[in-house]
Amino acid sequence: LISERSKCSLRLKTITDLLNHGMTSRRKEIEKKIESCPTFSNTPNANLSRLELHSRALAKHIKMMEIAQQLKISLNDCTSPEFVMLVQAVNDDLPTLLHWGMFMPNIKCLCDDEQREKWLPLCSDCRVVGCYAQTEMGHGSNVRALETTAAYDNATKSFTINTPTLTSTKFWPGSLGKSANTAMVIAQLIDSTGANRGVHNFIVPIRDYCTHEPLPGVTVGDIGSKLGYNKMDNGYLKLQNVVIPKENMAMRFSKINEFGVYEKINLDDATSKISYITMMQVRAQIVAMASQALAQACTISIRYSAVRVQGFDKTGKKEKQIIDYVQQQHRLFGYLASSYAFFFSGRRIMENLKSIERGIIDKTRSVSKNQIGDLHASLSTLKAFCSTVAAEGIENCRRACGGHGYLVASGLPELLTTYQQNPTVEGDNYMLPQQTAKVLLKLLQAILSGDDSASVEWAGCDAFYFVEGIKEQSQDPPPIPINNPEAAIDTTLLLKILKRRSSQILIEVGTSINEGLDDGAELSEVWNDSLIQIARVSNAHAAVLLMQSFDDFLKSNELTGEELIAMRQLACLFGLMVVERDAGDFHDILDKAGIDHVRKAVLLVLKKIRPNAVGLVDAFDFSDFRLKSVLGRYDGEVYEHLMKSCEADMMNRQEVIQPVVSLGGLGLTSRL
Amino acid sequence: LISERSKCSLRLKTITDLLNHGMTSRRKEIEKKIESCPTFSNTPNANLSRLELHSRALAKHIKMMEIAQQLKISLNDCTSPEFVMLVQAVNDDLPTLLHWGMFMPNIKCLCDDEQREKWLPLCSDCRVVGCYAQTEMGHGSNVRALETTAAYDNATKSFTINTPTLTSTKFWPGSLGKSANTAMVIAQLIDSTGANRGVHNFIVPIRDYCTHEPLPGVTVGDIGSKLGYNKMDNGYLKLQNVVIPKENMAMRFSKINEFGVYEKINLDDATSKISYITMMQVRAQIVAMASQALAQACTISIRYSAVRVQGFDKTGKKEKQIIDYVQQQHRLFGYLASSYAFFFSGRRIMENLKSIERGIIDKTRSVSKNQIGDLHASLSTLKAFCSTVAAEGIENCRRACGGHGYLVASGLPELLTTYQQNPTVEGDNYMLPQQTAKVLLKLLQAILSGDDSASVEWAGCDAFYFVEGIKEQSQDPPPIPINNPEAAIDTTLLLKILKRRSSQILIEVGTSINEGLDDGAELSEVWNDSLIQIARVSNAHAAVLLMQSFDDFLKSNELTGEELIAMRQLACLFGLMVVERDAGDFHDILDKAGIDHVRKAVLLVLKKIRPNAVGLVDAFDFSDFRLKSVLGRYDGEVYEHLMKSCEADMMNRQEVIQPVVSLGGLGLTSRL
Repeated sequence: LISERSKCSLRLKTITDLLNHGMTSRRKEIEKKIESCPTFSNTPNANLSRLELHSRALAKHIKMMEIAQQLKISLNDCTSPEFVMLVQAVNDDLPTLLHWGMFMPNIKCLCDDEQREKWLPLCSDCRVVGCYAQTEMGHGSNVRALETTAAYDNATKSFTINTPTLTSTKFWPGSLGKSANTAMVIAQLIDSTGANRGVHNFIVPIRDYCTHEPLPGVTVGDIGSKLGYNKMDNGYLKLQNVVIPKENMAMRFSKINEFGVYEKINLDDATSKISYITMMQVRAQIVAMASQALAQACTISIRYSAVRVQGFDKTGKKEKQIIDYVQQQHRLFGYLASSYAFFFSGRRIMENLKSIERGIIDKTRSVSKNQIGDLHASLSTLKAFCSTVAAEGIENCRRACGGHGYLVASGLPELLTTYQQNPTVEGDNYMLPQQTAKVLLKLLQAILSGDDSASVEWAGCDAFYFVEGIKEQSQDPPPIPINNPEAAIDTTLLLKILKRRSSQILIEVGTSINEGLDDGAELSEVWNDSLIQIARVSNAHAAVLLMQSFDDFLKSNELTGEELIAMRQLACLFGLMVVERDAGDFHDILDKAGIDHVRKAVLLVLKKIRPNAVGLVDAFDFSDFRLKSVLGRYDGEVYEHLMKSCEADMMNRQEVIQPVVSLGGLGLTSRL
Repeated sequence: LISERSKCSLRLKTITDLLNHGMTSRRKEIEKKIESCPTFSNTPNANLSRLELHSRALAKHIKMMEIAQQLKISLNDCTSPEFVMLVQAVNDDLPTLLHWGMFMPNIKCLCDDEQREKWLPLCSDCRVVGCYAQTEMGHGSNVRALETTAAYDNATKSFTINTPTLTSTKFWPGSLGKSANTAMVIAQLIDSTGANRGVHNFIVPIRDYCTHEPLPGVTVGDIGSKLGYNKMDNGYLKLQNVVIPKENMAMRFSKINEFGVYEKINLDDATSKISYITMMQVRAQIVAMASQALAQACTISIRYSAVRVQGFDKTGKKEKQIIDYVQQQHRLFGYLASSYAFFFSGRRIMENLKSIERGIIDKTRSVSKNQIGDLHASLSTLKAFCSTVAAEGIENCRRACGGHGYLVASGLPELLTTYQQNPTVEGDNYMLPQQTAKVLLKLLQAILSGDDSASVEWAGCDAFYFVEGIKEQSQDPPPIPINNPEAAIDTTLLLKILKRRSSQILIEVGTSINEGLDDGAELSEVWNDSLIQIARVSNAHAAVLLMQSFDDFLKSNELTGEELIAMRQLACLFGLMVVERDAGDFHDILDKAGIDHVRKAVLLVLKKIRPNAVGLVDAFDFSDFRLKSVLGRYDGEVYEHLMKSCEADMMNRQEVIQPVVSLGGLGLTSRL
C-alpha cells in the first residue's frame, strides 16, 4: 500500500475535510476517546452469543452517555453532526438507538408544549427509554389498517389500549424487546361515542420504571435472531386492557377536549406537514448512511485488491495485483463513485430539508405544497435507489475479495447483513417509487395541460427539469450525438442524457395510464399494471438527482486542482455506468455507436481513476477500529492478522471435537 | 392457501415426478426416515453456538451413515441420486461433506489401482476422513503459483512436505479444520535432482487415527466464522517437515519410478482429460443446486405472498394479497421460471457429462477435444450465470417477504448466507467467463477462417449455433420483427433473438481484440481491456443454453396438457425477462417497438402464471422440515408459528437483561 500511496498525489486531507463537513479534528477527538475505552471493544464478536452481544452493547450505551457529557455532546438532537459522529465512532448496533432516533423526535413533533416539558427531560437522561411501536405482525406499510385500539372512557378520563388479535401484536419496533420501558403506540382511537377517529399516537409505559419488569397486561419480548443487526432487540408487544391517562395521547394536532369530545386542532397547511418531516429526515439519513456504508465496503475491498496478487503477469513470474484487472476496477470503482455521489445528494437534500423545516417553524420563508411534494418525491426515490445500490455494492465488494470476503473477519459480512434491512425499512424500496411517481405524474399533467403555471409553481424544485424535458420530447428530438469515447466523458452531456430518459419514461407511463383509463379500466387496475414502469421512472429520476448534485458540487469550487479533477472523473464514471447498465433505456436517446462509445469511455475513466483508487478510499479516513476488517487494514498487513483472527476462534479452543472420534472408531492404528 | 390451491388445476404430481427424476416415492421414504429421527433436528439453531452446531452436525453425519446402511444407499458415489437425496433430506451443513464430495472422487480419479484398493475401503467407513487441501491463504485460482512443496528424497523413498511461508498456509478446505484426519495436499513436486515438476497431489495424514490429535509437524484449525455455512469447519493447515512415503503421491498420471526418477505416464489425449471431469461434475452440481436453492426461496416467498395481505383493495375495506401486486409477481415469478430453467439445463448437462465420461472410460464413443472444450465452456458459463442469479434471487425473495424475511425464522437468511459462497467457489464467477470466451473465440476464428471444418467438428456441440449465427451476422440482418406483445410469447422466437445477441457480441469482442493486436498492443493487455465485454459474451451464451434446454424439454413430450402449457409460460417468461433486463444488448436486434412489446408481453405472462403460482411451488414438494421457515409453511399458518419462534428465542429466557436497569437509575418511582 505504500507504493500505492506514493502514486497518488491528491491532497487527501482536503477531501476528508469536505466529507466531514469541516469537522475532521472534532471527529478524530471523539473517535480517540471511544477507541481508547475498553468498554467499546468490538472483538471477538464471533465468539459471543446474541445475549452477550446485546448486554455488551447496552453497556456501551451507558458509557457513551458518560462520554457525551465529558465531550459536551448533546444527546437531544439525533441529527446533529456531533451526535452522528459519536454513534459512528462506537460503530456497533446500539439497542437504545430508537430512543434517540424515533421516540424523542416523535414527542418533539407530535406532543404539545406541556407534554414535551414533562417527557423530554425524562428521555434525556434515560429514566424513560422509549421506542416507536407502529408496525404490527400483520400490518406494515398500510398504516390505516392497524388493528390496535385505544378506547376512550370519559368517566375515568383514560384510554384502554388493546392488541385484540394475534396479527395486531406490535412487531419489529427497535429497542422494544428488552431495552425500552415506554412505547409510543400507534392505535385506532375509539372515542367515547364509539366512533373510530383513525390512528393516533399514545405514550404507553410498558415496564416498571424501577425493576424494569413488564407491567400488568403487557407481554413483551425479543422477536428472535435476524440476518443481521442482532444486538438490537427488535421486539413484540401484546397489550391487554392497559390503561393510560388521557394526557398520554400525543396532543399537538388533535385531542380529547375537556368535555370528552375528540377534536382536531386547526393548523395552517404547511404546519400540518411538520409530521412528515420526521419521516423525511429518516429517509435523508438513509441516503447519507448509504454513502458511508458503501465507503466502508470500498475501503476494505480496494485496499485488499491492492495487496492481493493473483495470476502471473506477462513475464510469467510475478503475480499481478488484482486491482489491475479491468473487471475488478469495473466492479469496485463504480461503487466508489456512487459513494461520493450519495454523499453530495445526501448533503444537499438534508440542507434542503432543514431550510424547509425552518421555513415552516420560523415562518422565515414561504413553503408551498409543491415544494414539500417535490422533496417527498426526491427523498422517496433517493432512499430506494441509494439503499438498493448500497446493499448490492457491499455484496459485490465482498465478492471482489474472493473467499476471504466470506469470512466474518473481513468485516464485510457484518456490514452487509446489518445493511440489508435498509431496502425494507422506512418505506420498502418496491413501494416507494409509487410515491415519487404520484408527484411526477401530477407535474406531467400540469405541464401537458398547457398552461404555464407549472413552470412558475415548480421553479426551484428538484423535478423542475421535467418542464423543459417534456416540452422537448413533444418535438421528437433526434438522438444525442456522441462521436467518440472521449466526448462521453462530460458531466453536462451525461446529465442531459439522463434527463431526457426521465422525461421519456415519465411520458410513456402517463400515456399508458391514460390509455388504460380510456379503455374503461379502473384506476387501481391500471396503476397495478404500471408498477413495473413506475419503478423505472423513479430509478431514472434518482439518477438525474444524483448526477445533478454531483455536477453542482463540481461547479461550486469547494475543491480545486487535482482533487477537483479526481472528483470529476468519479462523477463521469457514475453517469457513464448508469447509461451502461440501463443501456436499454437509451434506445433512441443515443444511437448504437453512442452506446458503444459510452462502454469504451467507462474503460478510459477506470484507467484514470486507478492510480488514485487507494487514495480516494484513504480520504474516507476510516480507522481500523471502525472498519473491523483484517482485509481492509490501513497498513495492508492482511495475512498476519487473518491468521491471528483464526487462531482466536472459539472452534479452536478444543483441539478435538468429540463426536468425530466416534466417526471411524473401527480400530485403526494411530498411523496408517 | 386452500383457495389458492383450488385455483390451480395442474396435476402437480406429474411435475414433481419430473423434478425427482421419477424417484419421488424413494425420496419421500428417505425424508421420512430422516425427519422422524430426533438426531436430525434443525432447531433451535439461533440459540446454539457455532461449536454446538458443528458438534451436532457431526452427530448427524454418524447417524446418516447408519441410516444409509439401513436404506441400502451407497456412500461411495456422491453424485448418485440416492446419495444426493439423502444429503438433501438432512438439509444441514455436513462437516464431512468434502470427504465424499472431493477427497474420495479425487482418489478415484488420480490414484492408481493399488492406491485405490488401499484407500477407498478406509474412506467408505470413515476410518479415513479426508479433505482436499489445494487453496492457500495467498493463492486461489492460480494453481501454478501454490507455494507448498513436496521434496522427494530417494534415500528414504519419501516426500517431505512443507508450507514454507505464511501465505502458503493451506486455507479454506472444507472439513479440514476439525473433522478430517487426512488431507489430499496439492504441492509443488521437487524431485531428487532439485527440479520443480509442477503441482501434484499427495495423501497426507494430519491427525492421529486413534486420538484425532494433530500429528507432529502439523498445525491445523478452523478459519473462523463465516457469512454462512458455519457448521462446516473450513480449515487452515501448516506443515513443517511432514514426511510421507513415496506411495502417498497420487500416481495415476505421473510417479517417481523405481530409480527415484520422476516420470509422466503416457495416456491418450482423451484419457488425460479425465482429471477435468471431477471439476466439471462439481460445476454441474452447482447448476442443479442453484435450481434447488431458488426453488426453496420461491416456495417460501410465493406461499407467504399468498398469505400476506397489505393495502386496501378498491372497495377500501378488504386488504389485497400481496401476490396480486404486479410488481411482486415480477420480482418472484422470474426466479420461479429460472429455477425450472436451471433444472432442465442441469439435467441435460449432467447427462452430457456422464456420456462423455463413459465414452472416455469404456471407449464406447469417440470424444473429441472440441467436445470437451465445448462442455467446459458450457459448464463455466452456466456455473457463473446460475449461481449469480440464484444468489440474487434468494435475496430478492427474502426482500419480497418484507420485514419478516429478515428474521432467521423465515428460513431465508440461512439459505441466503450459506448460498452466497457459490459465486466464489469452484471458479469465481468473475473469472469463469474467460474460460468460456477462450473456447468461443477459437470457434469464431475457425468459422471466420472460411473453411467448413468448423461445422463438422463442432456438430452436436452446445456452441454449434454460432456457426449459422456468425454467418448471418456477416449479412447484416434487419431487426427481428415483433408486431405485438402476444407475438413475443414464443420460445422459438425468443431463442432466435438470444442466439443473435450471442453471435453479435462474440463478433464484437473478437473484432476488438484483433484491432488491439493490430495496433501493436500485447495480448495480455488487450485481453485485460476486453474482460468486461467477455463477461457479456458469457452471459449471452448462458441464456441461449438455458433457453435451448427449456425449449428441447417442451418438445420432448415428457409433460402434456395443462402442465406443458404452464411450463411453456415459464420458459417464455424466462426468455422475455432476459431481453427486458438486458434490453441494451438488443439495440439493433429488435426495434424500439419490439422492446416495448417484450415489456408488455412480460405483463401478460405474469397474469397467466398467477393462478398456478402456488401450485408450481407446491410441485417442488419441499417438506416443512426441509424449508425450516415459518413463512413458507405448507399450511399457511404463518403468524402462529412466527410467534412461537419468537418466544423460544434465547433473548427471552431472561425477562430483564441487567445492564438496562442501570441505564436510568436516577430514582424514578415504578410508574410515572
